[in-house]
Order: sequence, then structure tokens, then C-alpha cells
Amino acid sequence: MALSEFGLIERFFCQQTVKNTSTRLGIGDDCALLAFPPGFELAITTDTMVENVHFFAGTDPEQLGHKLLAVNLSDLASMGAKPVSIMLALTLPKADEGWLGAFAKGFLNLAKRYNVDLIGGDTTSGPLALTVQALGLVPQGQALMRSSAKPGDFIYVTGLLGDAGLGLKIKQGYHCSDPDGALKRFNCPTPQVETGQALIGIAHACIDVSDGLAADLGHILQKSQVGACLDWETLPISAAVQGYIAATGDWQLPLTAGDDYELCFTVSPEKVAQLTVPCHKIGVIEAQPGLQLRKSGTVLPLEMKGFEHFY
Amino acid sequence: MALSEFGLIERFFCQQTVKNTSTRLGIGDDCALLAFPPGFELAITTDTMVENVHFFAGTDPEQLGHKLLAVNLSDLASMGAKPVSIMLALTLPKADEGWLGAFAKGFLNLAKRYNVDLIGGDTTSGPLALTVQALGLVPQGQALMRSSAKPGDFIYVTGLLGDAGLGLKIKQGYHCSDPDGALKRFNCPTPQVETGQALIGIAHACIDVSDGLAADLGHILQKSQVGACLDWETLPISAAVQGYIAATGDWQLPLTAGDDYELCFTVSPEKVAQLTVPCHKIGVIEAQPGLQLRKSGTVLPLEMKGFEHFY
Repeated sequence: MALSEFGLIERFFCQQTVKNTSTRLGIGDDCALLAFPPGFELAITTDTMVENVHFFAGTDPEQLGHKLLAVNLSDLASMGAKPVSIMLALTLPKADEGWLGAFAKGFLNLAKRYNVDLIGGDTTSGPLALTVQALGLVPQGQALMRSSAKPGDFIYVTGLLGDAGLGLKIKQGYHCSDPDGALKRFNCPTPQVETGQALIGIAHACIDVSDGLAADLGHILQKSQVGACLDWETLPISAAVQGYIAATGDWQLPLTAGDDYELCFTVSPEKVAQLTVPCHKIGVIEAQPGLQLRKSGTVLPLEMKGFEHFY
Repeated sequence: MALSEFGLIERFFCQQTVKNTSTRLGIGDDCALLAFPPGFELAITTDTMVENVHFFAGTDPEQLGHKLLAVNLSDLASMGAKPVSIMLALTLPKADEGWLGAFAKGFLNLAKRYNVDLIGGDTTSGPLALTVQALGLVPQGQALMRSSAKPGDFIYVTGLLGDAGLGLKIKQGYHCSDPDGALKRFNCPTPQVETGQALIGIAHACIDVSDGLAADLGHILQKSQVGACLDWETLPISAAVQGYIAATGDWQLPLTAGDDYELCFTVSPEKVAQLTVPCHKIGVIEAQPGLQLRKSGTVLPLEMKGFEHFY
């Protein structure tokens, strides 16, 4: 049976919608309608994933649905926002029911975990590309911004760096004796949603590690007009990534690989005692611009660079 | 010079941003931040346009930028919402500065006209596709919804029907002695932003004519669980479309062609005196389901169908 545009959306996406208190009108009209409590600001972000650019052709659709939403929720987490609503714009080469069912499952299971409503979207035919817009709430004036780092702040990350990058290397042919953890980090990242909210009032600047630590911390440094020094020995690195570095010599992987979706944030020394989230101190913010790395007793300059399009 | 993803966005889109009172934080962080006045709901919509599906390869980029935003503002208009903010997700095969400059010009000029802030987005490489998310404000509980039509309501449209469809025919090779008006309607539609807001408190149901009058009115009928009878002789049709019908016999064009972006709305007879916007009465809502057309003294059933993907 051929499915119409509307039939497609309704069949796979409408039935599982959670109704949270912000949703006044969901899928099915020209717009969705939302109402928010007073005292909050709306945080809003959008990310597109394109086949053969952000994911391999033939990627498991359930994992893809999960990851697409996870990367958007990660942007909300990095501002300290609580996710509320999502819109989904799907461009599909054909209406493949098996693919859509699996994609919707991965996408909606993650949405349900955070009580996030899918409130609308658009379905078009064309080369496979997926755009999500995510909306969240953050207490007024308290969002964690890239521009808020101060000299003297300690720099933290919430978890292991480089595993998603190793997962990508494995997909590209690198042989790893214990590949499962890295592949899971690459295929099914966990957005740090609760952690982001728990950092409100404690952290100064915050960003999610999507393009690589050096690049993403670089955005904080640029927007805050400060510099930083990282301490190589304190970077949280898994045994698998340690094995990869030992085998290849590519020690920069944890600094340049994207897709980890951990949070990187800064906290003033006076507030450190209030930190309750699992995290690792990896360096310090300095007044002098630039990013440096202390490694084996020497200090190296680091390029603030990760994966970018159009280079 | 090769342009980075960030350089691209900043160069073409950041500088012309209008700062309206809702924007607390615009482009440049993981999320934008918005604050809204009390007593309003947020209306939100998304639309994607894909090359070779929604527009021809080689389409003038300035017109494309205009149309992409116009179709999204039209969705806000159809709910009676005042546009406030937009997000833009661009997937581009290459970073063509000339194309981007012209596209940004068409897009931002229209945004400026309505004091709408571009607050964020995403730029990715891939086959040309453009997704906008538009946000607007509507007085609490007063949005114009598809589900609100009542038997006895009169049906109105705000302007000429079929001209954009004729413009498409002309692009596909139809010879028209006076093509400019129709082409302009197809290339550069005007969203009925002020009209939509002026209908708040007066109209019951409202929709924008994007897929064709029969299909779009059909959505109102379906959601409101009513029927309608249209009067062929009262449909507002331009001389060019009349000429097309006379030449081809294709009298259904004004009913089935999309892209006009006029509003179609229903008003109870008691409220008609309050209507101050330019509009044309074209039929009446009936309790009996189905869409009918009174034409040359007979009543014909109409399929509630227009352009759809995946048929």
C-alpha cells in the first residue's frame, strides 16, 4: 500500500506521543501550540543529520532515531535546560515502513524517557536527511552559556573522552579487541540531560562535546575571551582508547574526536564543593587566550579544531 | 578561500539579525534563549524544501530564500500567530558564496519586514535541502485551529486562487501571454501575516492554501467533522487563470493547485459584520461530511486532494 505523507506521520509518530503539561496542541494543525510556566526561558536548538555525512548509509534506523534525538537533547543539556518538545523534519527517498518503524522506535523511546512530546514536523521526499528542533525550559537568566567562563575556573568533563571517536575508527576498519563499548558510544550516545540541569547555579560556562574537546572548549574560550590549560594525565580515557593510543600513537584522539556528547563545563573554585554530578577535573581557565596542554612535563599549544563541514 | 561552517553562518546570517524583545540569546551558543510575555501561547511550525521536489534546480536563490521563509510564516498566519523567531537548517552541496549571499538576502529581507529574529540554525553538507522552524505568539486559547469550523459558517479566502499553480505550469512549459503575475505568485508568495492576526476572535477555523484549496479545506472538514459546499462562481480567479481554463479546459486548477498561501477560513454569520480583512466568500460549512462544488447549476462531489509526497 502506498502511504500518504500524512498517513506516514500519523502511523509511526502520533500514537506514541506523551502529553506533557506544556503541549496545548500537538501534531495535526498548521502549528503546534505550547504554553510555558512563568519564570522560565525557552532554550531552542536544531541539528540536521545527513546520510553519508553524519551517518553511514545502511545505519541501523533504531540507533539513528536515538542518536538524532540524543544530539539535540545534548544541546539543551549544555544550557542546563529541561527538554519539553521536539519537532521532526524527515526527508526520505522512499516510504519504507520497516525503516520508519525502527527509526520511530529509537526516536520515541528516548523522547519518552525524558517526557518530551513530539509536537509536529514535516515529511518530504528527497535524499535522506533528518532535522530535529528541540525546545526546553531553563530558569530565567540562569542558562549555562559559552560566554560565562572566568579565569581561575576549573574545567570539568562529565565522562570518558574519545570512545565515540574510537567507535568511528572501528566502523572505518580499525581492529579493536573489545569494540562494544566504543561502538555503543558512537551509535547510541546518552545526552547528559539531568547533569546539565544539576549544573544550573553552579557551573559558569558549559558546552557539549560534539565536535571534539579542543574545538568545543575552544568555543567557550572564544566566547568568554579567555584561555585554558588542560592536563593530559587527568583526561578520563577508557582502556579501549588507551589501547588504541598505544597501538597507533594517535594520542590526540580524545581531544579531537567528536560525538562523545559529554558536557564540558567550568566552575569557580568557591563553587566546587557544591558539585554533585559525576565529573573529572581536566584543567583550568586562564586569562591569557589560547588552549594549551600539559603533557609529560611540557606544555604544548593545541589547535582548537575538530570536525567541520566545508573545509 | 574555504569557509568553515561557523564562518558561513556568521558571514551571511548574523550581521542582519533584528533584535526583537523576545530574543534573550541569538546565534552562537548551543541553544538560543527566548522569553515571552504572559498571556500568550507559542505557535511553532517546521517546513522543509528539497531541491527537485519543492523547487527546480537552478531556482533563483533570493526568491528561494524568500519563499522558504514565506511558507513557514504562512503556517503561523493560519493560526493567527504573530511571528517572532526563526531557525534555519541548511544542507548545501557546497559553500557557494554568491548563492548564499542571494539566498540570505531574500530570507532576511522578509524576516526584517516582520521583525522576526533568526536565532539559530545548523549548516551541513549534503544534497540541497532547507528546513525552517518558525515560532510565533498567539493570545492564550485563541489560536485559529482546523478543528473549529461549525455548520452554518461561511467560508472565505483572502485572495486569488490558482495563480501560483499557473506559475508552475508556465515554468513547466505552458505558454501564457501575460505570465508575470502568476510567476510572481509562484516564486515570491506573500504570507498573510497581518490578516491571520486580524482574524483572531472573528474566524472559527483557518488554514493556509499550500496544497490546494480542496485538500486544505479538506483538512478543516476532517478535523472539524463537518462538510462544505463551495460555489464555483464566487471563487476569486485572475484573468490569467481564466484564460488558462478557457484554453485547456482544466477548470479544477484553482481547487487543486498549491502554493497560493492565501488563508481559507470560516466565520459564523453573526460575526461576518466584524470582518475587516479583504476576503471573498466562497461557500458554506455543512453538517453533512464531504466536499461539494456548486457549478453551472449542478452540485459535484470534490476529492479533498492536492499535492502530496509518496503517492
